[in-house]
Amino acid sequence: MEKVPVPEIEARVAHLQRQLEKHNLDLALIGQNTDLFYYTGTVVDGFLAVPAQGQPQLLVRRPRQRLATEGSVWPVKHFKNFKDLRQLLEKLGLPRQARVGLELDVLPAALYLKLGQQVFPSHPIKDLSTIIRCQRMVKSAYEIEQLQRAAAILDQALEVVVDLLRPGMTELELDAAVIYHLRRLGDQGQARIRRWNLELFFGHVLSGTSGLKAAYTDTPSGGSGVSLAFPQGASSKPLVPGEPISIDFLACVNGYIVDQTRMYALGWLPDEAWEAFAVVEDLYRMFAVEARPGVMPGDLYHRLCEAVQAQGRQDYFMGIGRERVRFIGHGVGLEADEFPLLSAHFPHALETDMVMAFEPKFFLPEIGMIGQEDTGRITPHGIEWLTITPPGILVKPI
Amino acid sequence: MEKVPVPEIEARVAHLQRQLEKHNLDLALIGQNTDLFYYTGTVVDGFLAVPAQGQPQLLVRRPRQRLATEGSVWPVKHFKNFKDLRQLLEKLGLPRQARVGLELDVLPAALYLKLGQQVFPSHPIKDLSTIIRCQRMVKSAYEIEQLQRAAAILDQALEVVVDLLRPGMTELELDAAVIYHLRRLGDQGQARIRRWNLELFFGHVLSGTSGLKAAYTDTPSGGSGVSLAFPQGASSKPLVPGEPISIDFLACVNGYIVDQTRMYALGWLPDEAWEAFAVVEDLYRMFAVEARPGVMPGDLYHRLCEAVQAQGRQDYFMGIGRERVRFIGHGVGLEADEFPLLSAHFPHALETDMVMAFEPKFFLPEIGMIGQEDTGRITPHGIEWLTITPPGILVKPI
Repeated sequence: MEKVPVPEIEARVAHLQRQLEKHNLDLALIGQNTDLFYYTGTVVDGFLAVPAQGQPQLLVRRPRQRLATEGSVWPVKHFKNFKDLRQLLEKLGLPRQARVGLELDVLPAALYLKLGQQVFPSHPIKDLSTIIRCQRMVKSAYEIEQLQRAAAILDQALEVVVDLLRPGMTELELDAAVIYHLRRLGDQGQARIRRWNLELFFGHVLSGTSGLKAAYTDTPSGGSGVSLAFPQGASSKPLVPGEPISIDFLACVNGYIVDQTRMYALGWLPDEAWEAFAVVEDLYRMFAVEARPGVMPGDLYHRLCEAVQAQGRQDYFMGIGRERVRFIGHGVGLEADEFPLLSAHFPHALETDMVMAFEPKFFLPEIGMIGQEDTGRITPHGIEWLTITPPGILVKPI
Repeated sequence: MEKVPVPEIEARVAHLQRQLEKHNLDLALIGQNTDLFYYTGTVVDGFLAVPAQGQPQLLVRRPRQRLATEGSVWPVKHFKNFKDLRQLLEKLGLPRQARVGLELDVLPAALYLKLGQQVFPSHPIKDLSTIIRCQRMVKSAYEIEQLQRAAAILDQALEVVVDLLRPGMTELELDAAVIYHLRRLGDQGQARIRRWNLELFFGHVLSGTSGLKAAYTDTPSGGSGVSLAFPQGASSKPLVPGEPISIDFLACVNGYIVDQTRMYALGWLPDEAWEAFAVVEDLYRMFAVEARPGVMPGDLYHRLCEAVQAQGRQDYFMGIGRERVRFIGHGVGLEADEFPLLSAHFPHALETDMVMAFEPKFFLPEIGMIGQEDTGRITPHGIEWLTITPPGILVKPI
């Protein structure tokens, strides 16, 4: 099993400790699987305790044996209950009034209340999530490499699509085939999402008017899925010549997720679809040079929206009418919904090595969704795409 | 798209309203996807407001169009922010001191704090999760039918396994093949889990000593997965003759999940494996007649553990040594980790139409995991299995 390099993990924790100092926090207690992996290189049932100064400790409920075999960057202590946990933290030398940071955006309320009562009864508790999410939005060379590997397996899995595409095949059959190939190529299966209730099963394979159905999640495309219990993604609708077919998929290697959308068609597409796609290509050209360090996402978001408005297409951009989502891109990494957001009010300027999925998409009534999505890295010269599947709409003759 | 029958949804909400009265709560505000689906028959970004008396309202941020087309059992109101939400709740006629129930086991702390400040500033807030989880543990005839359908597609997907099995095939290839067939048969993809950080991607395809690796999650089997970021499930280990091969998988139809484990082998298995499996069969026979209405799960749990101890196998039952999990079965339904638990201290007696996954498993050093799992319904006469794949260890000649 490949390990995250130790200096990488040490540098991440050192960065976090500087942030704790800066925000007047004495301790970070980190428990969410993604954040644990980021700061430890593994996932356990337990917490990483990071004091503002000194050595972190990995406090583990389970597993024991695997961790002993695998090794741990940080010293491991075992605990069974919150009383043990409190004693372990006291041994770390924390004062009774220590200011504690917790991941309040993901920690369930009941667990937060229990920690407050039983572990931190006299400690002010602050939300740590913005500190962590802001740290994670800038990627290291190691992280970029994992993203490139995820992009490579997604590209390889999509190679089967053109052969498979045929009229009458269902969205679900196409979805199943791409997932099959992705998994065989080593996709880790579970791609994590941070926001509560935001669910995604690999992504959305949609065709024709399926592409127009808005989901309950904050994503531009949606679809109906196969069940009202999970109303998004591929359905049993058959593919029809002349309809746009889109595969908006995640791929995940060593925890790192890329997000890519590619368009296909059987035989032909109406002129209006090609016209909309030409605007998508214009927006790509703008983004590729304007997404640079120092640029405020809100300024770029507005310039892109103005370009859409100049074409009179604003009512069908990123959704239809009031269903439109208020972003054109989002960070990806260990989670599919990372910072930064390419939206009106995201408060941080772009920086070198931020990684974003850019996804301008039009929703053409009676036709379907026309768009494209790629994951790219911000460089001083603009975007460097990490996803490698050739862009454009692939039309298969019938 | 198949809909949940309206009388089913109305009965669920009526039951909840009786519980609210009983627990002195004036309002339940339900937001988690699973719970929303249970009480509305759909999933939205928003909340279902259920007053103890009177009509519930579905308060929706998105989507708009889909919901309008699909229809809603409950009146729909739209809101954009928490100020709107508060006004909508005031119009429902709630007194300023109304006692409010929230799903504190799943609601993120930050959202809980924000709701407390901006929507319920003067309202006592109670945890609603036990009420909901206890209601959901007893299934209706409609729900049992959905579970039977999930069992049927899992059985059908597993039919491919015997043909595929061959030495040198990896766990991952087998996992990918079963997922492919499940998805094509209409598996909804996303199977939900309630507990924070408890993750599962369909389940675990494990072979030989892979089966002995404990996961970070509270499951008896684990495996290593393909990445330290998600260290569970199938790995790139090839299948070898003479090793136990286990497929512990979920299948999900219309939201409802069954959980089943089946064992396979290439050519042969050591005697010790067969001896352990004979104990598994004994435990099945005990459970099948003793799991009846009125039985306390703790009593049954202890009798099963005593039977294991009588065979001197307690140190390798449900894990190895301190890695053992403290349950032999768990409820399933809309989530893979429902009530009841077959554990020492679960506080409710079994009732007719509770649905449980029973999974006695032994972890034999140097050999692997030997066990079986089925999902069944409690009846006055004992268990009625819903999963239908023939039990036993299927040995494929090589």
